[in-house]
Amino acid sequence: MASPPKYLTGDKAAIREFIDKFDTFLLDCDGVLWSGDHVYEGVPETIAYLRAQGKRTVFVTNNSTKARPEYLKKLKNAGIPSEVEDVFGSSYSAAIYISRILKLPADKRKVFVLGEAGIEMELASEGIQSIGGTDPNFRRDITQADFEALANGSALDPEVGVVLCGLDFHVNYLKLAYGMHYLRQGAIFLATNSDSTLPMHHNFFLGAGSCFIPLINATGMKPLELGKPSQAMMDAVEGKFQLDRAKTCMIGDRLNTDIKFGIEGKLGGTLHVLTGVHKKADWDKEDAVAVPAFYADKLSDICLDS
Amino acid sequence: MASPPKYLTGDKAAIREFIDKFDTFLLDCDGVLWSGDHVYEGVPETIAYLRAQGKRTVFVTNNSTKARPEYLKKLKNAGIPSEVEDVFGSSYSAAIYISRILKLPADKRKVFVLGEAGIEMELASEGIQSIGGTDPNFRRDITQADFEALANGSALDPEVGVVLCGLDFHVNYLKLAYGMHYLRQGAIFLATNSDSTLPMHHNFFLGAGSCFIPLINATGMKPLELGKPSQAMMDAVEGKFQLDRAKTCMIGDRLNTDIKFGIEGKLGGTLHVLTGVHKKADWDKEDAVAVPAFYADKLSDICLDS
Repeated sequence: MASPPKYLTGDKAAIREFIDKFDTFLLDCDGVLWSGDHVYEGVPETIAYLRAQGKRTVFVTNNSTKARPEYLKKLKNAGIPSEVEDVFGSSYSAAIYISRILKLPADKRKVFVLGEAGIEMELASEGIQSIGGTDPNFRRDITQADFEALANGSALDPEVGVVLCGLDFHVNYLKLAYGMHYLRQGAIFLATNSDSTLPMHHNFFLGAGSCFIPLINATGMKPLELGKPSQAMMDAVEGKFQLDRAKTCMIGDRLNTDIKFGIEGKLGGTLHVLTGVHKKADWDKEDAVAVPAFYADKLSDICLDS
Repeated sequence: MASPPKYLTGDKAAIREFIDKFDTFLLDCDGVLWSGDHVYEGVPETIAYLRAQGKRTVFVTNNSTKARPEYLKKLKNAGIPSEVEDVFGSSYSAAIYISRILKLPADKRKVFVLGEAGIEMELASEGIQSIGGTDPNFRRDITQADFEALANGSALDPEVGVVLCGLDFHVNYLKLAYGMHYLRQGAIFLATNSDSTLPMHHNFFLGAGSCFIPLINATGMKPLELGKPSQAMMDAVEGKFQLDRAKTCMIGDRLNTDIKFGIEGKLGGTLHVLTGVHKKADWDKEDAVAVPAFYADKLSDICLDS
């Protein structure tokens, strides 16, 4: 049984001690910084305060459809001007994982993408060649010639060593057949995240996990997932920033992704804020998926500069 | 423990008794009548012999992509001229099930199809209106307008009461989103069969089950499957032919589909032929999925007219 989290709101001495404990803060975005287009009060000031204390702030999100430049735009509009290096999305996580953690043979370094432009852009930013993805040649019906060329292998690029999947609004039988055959030939199976649904317009659509589950079903293989709480994402964050995990704190609003991510990553701490999905009752119950080390009503409660 | 099956090959008295026991024979096709384009020796004569004895022969197959007229052509080419009424495929099974077993309210009788023309043709043959399927309006990319109209429900036909899925070489995000939203609105979830892979060109592609598994993943719902060994298919066969199950025998080459189908359907008997997938060792082992009542080396062994 984990000890109950320490409540920081209003306790200046505890907040001081909390901040001094860390040199890096990993922050989830939705539910922590903002909800949709609504930025929570005091958030920009809190980020500025942490940075003024010499802390590094890294934004860690599971949304794979956006590349970092789009996140930067959103952060800037929210009053949190940042550098591209401050943002870590699951498609970028995948790119980092492929380029810095996986040791691919020189002749197996291409990635077949089942996903949108965000993934392609992040792969390109790490110098990784990709095929499939948004290529119009894959956005069409499968033909008899495709079936034959896939079956005898002549359609397959022998340099493909990875199949990377994410949310793909253009998923079709042809792309799935390519993905299936690359996997059957030994490609490594990766996914940015596996959300089954995608909240949109106050309703639900098919999420990333529902786009690539045909590959799991047809091959019997399971992808390594790069989004939170996967430790592959933590390894990628660490690989990029050379983190001292003991001096790093994960801040989030979801126990099953953010807080679990920080605990399993053996970070020095986790801070849960009550502005998003999970509440105090969620970690108070006996079978709680994860219990944070600290909690506060809202992110701006840890800002001592007021 | 089931008693071991009776071996018929070469035992004229036993064969006579076997044939006299039944008035209807349900026959699987691939592995029983033929393998691909190769028709097994003596098969046309055996079917003719059974018919001459006043027996009804019904061909029962799980392949949903072909409508019955295409099967008739194949049977004719194999030297087994038949009537359309003699063929029972899983898409026809689904159509029968919808029209004769399901009691749909008058204002919920349309079927949204995720599948190919074979399914549409069989639905039409039972007078069932379908949408989706091969309609070019669904063979395109999803747009922002689609997302909105699906989310607010204005894109949905209120008369759709069933989502019927099968193998769909044109599966895409738009069709899956429609299927998902009809299911979320309470449509009944049916599938012709759930094979994860499709053997083709001496290799494997995505089978029917891998085309519609995104709907299972995104909704948490599971379809009723209409192909063998599903008893929904047996109900549909019975609904059409007014079978006397005690006087009906299933003949097949696979324990997990054909023989299981016959046993669970409480048919009077099951005959396993050794010209296809499963062999004697498969039912001899302790955890056999099903044990036939009779077996023979090949279908033509039960032909006494030689």
